[in-house]
Amino acid sequence: MTYCLALALDAGFVCVSDSRTNAGVDDVATFSKLHRFGIPGESAFVLLSAGNLATSQAVVTQLRRDIEADDGPHLHGFEHMADAAAYVGEASQAAQHGTREGPNQGVEFQASFILCGQIGADPPEVMLIYPQGNYIRATDETPFMQVGELKTGKAVLDRLVRRDLPLPTAARIALVSMEAAMRSNLSVGPPVEMVIYEADSLEVDRYASFDRDHPYWRKLSRTWTEELRAAIDRLPKFDWET
Amino acid sequence: MTYCLALALDAGFVCVSDSRTNAGVDDVATFSKLHRFGIPGESAFVLLSAGNLATSQAVVTQLRRDIEADDGPHLHGFEHMADAAAYVGEASQAAQHGTREGPNQGVEFQASFILCGQIGADPPEVMLIYPQGNYIRATDETPFMQVGELKTGKAVLDRLVRRDLPLPTAARIALVSMEAAMRSNLSVGPPVEMVIYEADSLEVDRYASFDRDHPYWRKLSRTWTEELRAAIDRLPKFDWET
Repeated sequence: MTYCLALALDAGFVCVSDSRTNAGVDDVATFSKLHRFGIPGESAFVLLSAGNLATSQAVVTQLRRDIEADDGPHLHGFEHMADAAAYVGEASQAAQHGTREGPNQGVEFQASFILCGQIGADPPEVMLIYPQGNYIRATDETPFMQVGELKTGKAVLDRLVRRDLPLPTAARIALVSMEAAMRSNLSVGPPVEMVIYEADSLEVDRYASFDRDHPYWRKLSRTWTEELRAAIDRLPKFDWET
Repeated sequence: MTYCLALALDAGFVCVSDSRTNAGVDDVATFSKLHRFGIPGESAFVLLSAGNLATSQAVVTQLRRDIEADDGPHLHGFEHMADAAAYVGEASQAAQHGTREGPNQGVEFQASFILCGQIGADPPEVMLIYPQGNYIRATDETPFMQVGELKTGKAVLDRLVRRDLPLPTAARIALVSMEAAMRSNLSVGPPVEMVIYEADSLEVDRYASFDRDHPYWRKLSRTWTEELRAAIDRLPKFDWET
């Protein structure tokens, strides 16, 4: 599996992804699932993927080819995020279609995507694109999207994510969600990639990658554990405790 | 679904269960999944259940009948927890067998159990009994067992549970795990039941039930959220933050 998440904030968006892929526990590899697109000053996109790696890679390849060819619809040619999301959904359907027709030997070719981006004067958006090609947007009520192994890291998002959070705070929450998933789930693994996008900057320039031994990641992981342990001790005592 | 968990500690054990059952989101009900057995001074047992409610209830009914009848194997007649767990596994298999034989209309009759207990001078144990009737024990390396909707509440257990925790601390961790599951998963719901068992007491006497409006539960939930929010702010800053 995989775990990718994106937080939609008034101040912009935060994307975090792991890099583990596996076809069984004895066939594990490392692939980036965070892909950046855009033209500085015009548009900025981050695409996160989960599911079949061949499908995800085929979609990313198609997106890059369409931009280069520039003779039809492509990611840098849309005026609104809705059109960009529909286009990625179509590329995903097309990538799956080729494999579905042949003998599939029980393999699952589906992939899910999170497309985060901003085009011109439109507001930034975070969209979840289903394997079927349709999509939903993050809203005020649900300001985050997840794909892959989402359950382990969901509680902290449900509890703490609000649209009005500052970007660095939101980024720390997203990293904590990823750290929990990595700790509890073998199918989620390093390096962790992160993009912090500031609304209206129209440039994906704040990128970081953390391996398990990265000083920041180690400090984050250790501090969070210490903080949780201390927080448990500050919870209300039972009435029978002296 | 359901969420039940038990922590195996040097000092005893802690059991926590939710009370929601559902057969689809439009068929939701409240049933206790925490069942206490034992003879004070001789043995103490707590049985937690997840899965098909009819199977779980059939097993609990059988356990109580066997104790009353006292003319064959029963929970109060074993010398070791391993025998008690095997007996519960057999009762579970028997309860499923009756329904499996008929036309099942696609219904899943499986149930999982966590059996916690202590018999005489033997140490307390926490055992997970699979739907197939076999079982595993909590150990030093993995001092907790979960059944049902386990992923949401697992991260905090992986991070914080150790066998040498004091009982009240362990109980607060278990409640926090349950609170996270309730917050993020509709199929986990109140009241939350808890038993804290002190090793060698041979009596299940520390029991509590928390509805969503219970003052302790509300305070726990509010405090935990405040603590996590504050903890996020104490995580290491990014190097680009001023």
